[in-house]
Amino acid sequence: MKQLRECSIEELNEYCEQIRQKIIQTVSKNGGHLSSNVGAVELIVAMHYVFDIKNDPFIFDVSHQAYTHKLITDRWDRFDTLRELDGISGYTRPDESPYDYFVAGHSSTSISLAVGAAKAIALKGEQYKRVPVALIGDGSLSAGMVYEALNELGDRRYPVIIILNDNKMSISKPIGAISKFLSSAMAGDFYQKIKKTTEQILQYLPESATYMAKKFEESFKLITPGILFEELGIDYIGPIDGHNLESLIRAMQSAKGLKKPVIIHAQTLKGKGYEMAEGYYEKWHGVGPFDVASGEALKKGVSKNATTMYSEALMDLAKQHENVVGVTAAMPSGTGLSPLIQAYPNRFWDVAIAEQHAVTSMCAMAKEGFKPYITIYSTFLQRAYDQVIHDASILNLNVVFAIDRAGIVGEDGETHQGAFDISYLSVIPHMTLMAPRDEKAMHAAIRYSYKHQGPLAIRYPRGSFLSCDAFESKPFEYGKAQLLKEGDSKILLLGYGSGVGKAVATSKILSEKGIDAAIVDLRFAKPLDESLLISLALKYETWYVFSDSAKIGGVGSLLMALKEKNTLHVKIKTFEYDDAFITHGATHLVEDRLGITIEQLAGKILEDIE
Amino acid sequence: MKQLRECSIEELNEYCEQIRQKIIQTVSKNGGHLSSNVGAVELIVAMHYVFDIKNDPFIFDVSHQAYTHKLITDRWDRFDTLRELDGISGYTRPDESPYDYFVAGHSSTSISLAVGAAKAIALKGEQYKRVPVALIGDGSLSAGMVYEALNELGDRRYPVIIILNDNKMSISKPIGAISKFLSSAMAGDFYQKIKKTTEQILQYLPESATYMAKKFEESFKLITPGILFEELGIDYIGPIDGHNLESLIRAMQSAKGLKKPVIIHAQTLKGKGYEMAEGYYEKWHGVGPFDVASGEALKKGVSKNATTMYSEALMDLAKQHENVVGVTAAMPSGTGLSPLIQAYPNRFWDVAIAEQHAVTSMCAMAKEGFKPYITIYSTFLQRAYDQVIHDASILNLNVVFAIDRAGIVGEDGETHQGAFDISYLSVIPHMTLMAPRDEKAMHAAIRYSYKHQGPLAIRYPRGSFLSCDAFESKPFEYGKAQLLKEGDSKILLLGYGSGVGKAVATSKILSEKGIDAAIVDLRFAKPLDESLLISLALKYETWYVFSDSAKIGGVGSLLMALKEKNTLHVKIKTFEYDDAFITHGATHLVEDRLGITIEQLAGKILEDIE
Repeated sequence: MKQLRECSIEELNEYCEQIRQKIIQTVSKNGGHLSSNVGAVELIVAMHYVFDIKNDPFIFDVSHQAYTHKLITDRWDRFDTLRELDGISGYTRPDESPYDYFVAGHSSTSISLAVGAAKAIALKGEQYKRVPVALIGDGSLSAGMVYEALNELGDRRYPVIIILNDNKMSISKPIGAISKFLSSAMAGDFYQKIKKTTEQILQYLPESATYMAKKFEESFKLITPGILFEELGIDYIGPIDGHNLESLIRAMQSAKGLKKPVIIHAQTLKGKGYEMAEGYYEKWHGVGPFDVASGEALKKGVSKNATTMYSEALMDLAKQHENVVGVTAAMPSGTGLSPLIQAYPNRFWDVAIAEQHAVTSMCAMAKEGFKPYITIYSTFLQRAYDQVIHDASILNLNVVFAIDRAGIVGEDGETHQGAFDISYLSVIPHMTLMAPRDEKAMHAAIRYSYKHQGPLAIRYPRGSFLSCDAFESKPFEYGKAQLLKEGDSKILLLGYGSGVGKAVATSKILSEKGIDAAIVDLRFAKPLDESLLISLALKYETWYVFSDSAKIGGVGSLLMALKEKNTLHVKIKTFEYDDAFITHGATHLVEDRLGITIEQLAGKILEDIE
Repeated sequence: MKQLRECSIEELNEYCEQIRQKIIQTVSKNGGHLSSNVGAVELIVAMHYVFDIKNDPFIFDVSHQAYTHKLITDRWDRFDTLRELDGISGYTRPDESPYDYFVAGHSSTSISLAVGAAKAIALKGEQYKRVPVALIGDGSLSAGMVYEALNELGDRRYPVIIILNDNKMSISKPIGAISKFLSSAMAGDFYQKIKKTTEQILQYLPESATYMAKKFEESFKLITPGILFEELGIDYIGPIDGHNLESLIRAMQSAKGLKKPVIIHAQTLKGKGYEMAEGYYEKWHGVGPFDVASGEALKKGVSKNATTMYSEALMDLAKQHENVVGVTAAMPSGTGLSPLIQAYPNRFWDVAIAEQHAVTSMCAMAKEGFKPYITIYSTFLQRAYDQVIHDASILNLNVVFAIDRAGIVGEDGETHQGAFDISYLSVIPHMTLMAPRDEKAMHAAIRYSYKHQGPLAIRYPRGSFLSCDAFESKPFEYGKAQLLKEGDSKILLLGYGSGVGKAVATSKILSEKGIDAAIVDLRFAKPLDESLLISLALKYETWYVFSDSAKIGGVGSLLMALKEKNTLHVKIKTFEYDDAFITHGATHLVEDRLGITIEQLAGKILEDIE
């Protein structure tokens, strides 16, 4: 590990440049988070210069900006394996390095972690000997849990240092009052000007007003961006230039000495040092492999992804029906909502990282007769679980949850896999679960969803579907599955969503081995098509379930409950995910590791039969 | 419905007194939320005076303070059925009255709902003709989703009126920086004093400083409690006396005219008008029946409740082990953590209504070697679902989730029933689920939990357990069930947690009918005791599952998956809750309605056998 404290500022600046180039080169090959990482190089180098990674907890919010930290802490040589199976994770992971204090992939947890660490440090009698340091981007400030943590921190005043990486752009355009406030004109010049004028004015004041002087000072301090934090009981330093190592080091050293909660407000340029990316909001946040010189994406054979299908289907619907509205929580491009926000800025909103508010605010719109499409990744909808139950489902409101990234997402790994949504949503009364198998079905599903009464969750994967073109697409009907083909064997393949294409592909391999399996597209996981399934049970006694979801509480489990209720004489085997968090890496490699590629699944069925 | 606008202030004050007496009398008989309701009488009367309930959305946060609203809107005569089965709900419910805009029982959703309503109103072209009015208590301000909503509201500036009922005490003592800030000395006198002195000082200023005058004004405005809201883009009126109808009406009328987001900060006395309750923090928040004259609780035959058992068991553990720590989210008394916070103020914390922060901050403590007991009601843990997955479980941390109010909670109804926790937690990798059946088992479970590695969820009911005294209590062992008794019949009763006592009671009825059923206490729902269950399957072919939880994804469902995996030849029938939200009322009456009293369950088994 590099001994930063032995370096001059010049040497450190040079080191920053090396790190930046390493990040650009690696991300151009492996894909990953570019602009947040090149923007935070100096911040993290300064953190390592001032604080002691072997002693102080370094807490990276979301941790998609921690590449510099990884490079500093002994991962330079392995860094070319970034986001690959068994390679360096794109996020901090304690099982990857003792210098990674915590895991993070969802935003806005860092201040809570810092408060917890501070409580632990105090109890151990190590107060002021170890200082939790949290690095958090301005985009993460919109999520409510930050505020829950600040509320306790400002009250109990643990010595915690928060470094606010304010690049004014988070993932997409900055949304919300907080963001405006931070970047307001008050930030720099204005404060300085006021300060100077005050000093002049104070000369004119009579003796009797002396006590007011301090109050004036305080008042002016209030109109810096620090006010919001100071009022919550947290000291404020800033704003400072987040690319100036000397300023950063000085600020962090002062903060370290304060023995109080402190926030250092650093302004950075997202994409700093890679000209193509500088100033571009969303485009260069998370990227696939690209050509460094031209900035062009190195596209692999691209078939249309499910997100685009959803986006197009929703656009059709929005054109047709004025009461269709929608929301995304800081993922306008990722969820395909961008074109809708552009076309209908009064009907589609980005509400920033704020899943709870996204869900509940749309519930009020449903109450008023609108049809909201709440478009959130499977793993992030976990953030709004109570709102889905309490605000959407108790009243049986007409809201649609469009659940993107359902199933394995690939390189982002454990924190982003969309494995649990069927399990956590199916238990909710009034909730209906459905999933399209391909592009035609996506359009049919969205058309159906408009007429559906009550909360409805539609899941679809990251990336594209396997082809189901051989089978005719029918309109969706509530709770109705579609039998794609009968078979001569006793085997029934049951697919749900992206699992249908896998069932179809598996059936082809089986067919080559002389086994003619029936295939059903379940379409609805809740309610299941009870009458069809009962009739299929009479003919097919071995059922294999294909769904990109967790086994526990998943589609197989719902089928087993149906079997039990109806005393069906079938054997059910589900190919859903085992009870474990799923690692990062290219999706097909991860699936291979889990033993759930088409070939492997076909192999398992053939083994069963022998 | 009373025509308030035709009343004089005197008549309105008299009406307030009638309402207050009606609330005190009713709650003294039926139990319910007392102090929040008598504290908000004038606020709600003023709301109804100024705004139009037939037009403007009235949104009550948590809605446990909405009794006055119910009394005003045609529910006076039925109010004696408060919280009874088929009676008036303790919360707002659109299916109870067209004047109840939304359902609420969990805190801090009101501002999101108001924002959603405002968006809908704008789209309908009804802007300024209808105004969403949210009434929210200061206690609800600690939850993050309020801030998510304010962030959008302050940015997009919808005309929404927020009435902040600041009684400085929420359910328990006020926690957090926000609370301190609101009640700080700055609120009243200080602002006035500063304002006056400024005016004097400004006389001394030279002409050249004139432009500063405005800035000074602004600066002073900043140090009122309004600052936090004003800086977020929300106009502020206050603080005003929340029991003074004239002030309230004037403030609300001004706010109505502003056509901007406005917050009215009203200070009230919780418990106002019932001497016993005035100023008492937690005691008079939610109460059972009591004697109005003496304030004494009218105790029904009280057996020790599970919360007390947990509290005592945890106290024993905390005495023994210094690294035992714990947290509650604004429910110190409700969760039994009060005595621990008193005894160990540096190890047990109330972090206010902030479930997300509660979970994640404790995860950092676990990382530092502490053993946190995160004590949250089943239904409120839904608020921290992502944190349970992302912060506790991925790293397989040693944290215990003590899940109180698991199962039917009675009078609080739909929003509070603890039905879903098994379903939403069992899918999480690394998570272990267990439940004690009685007091001895609670102590054994807590002792076991200390040694357990990884996240562990222990559920227990509101109220007491049915007796299981006939059976010896053993120490808990990971994943091990306890066979309580063998039987001569083919029937096995499987109990989990509070379900064990029900299984035992049911077996007694069966035994009277000559049926000798075996009974197993599962102890762990995840992992199930596979080897024991396989062996039991050889002897008992009809399994009945007793657990106070939802059917979908519940204990029965987990057993069905085990059956399927091991090809067990058993028939499984689970007596868990059907797929519906469960209404309010005395628990035994609600259970009777659902057909799951002991007698009804025994009847169902006997029917099966015939």
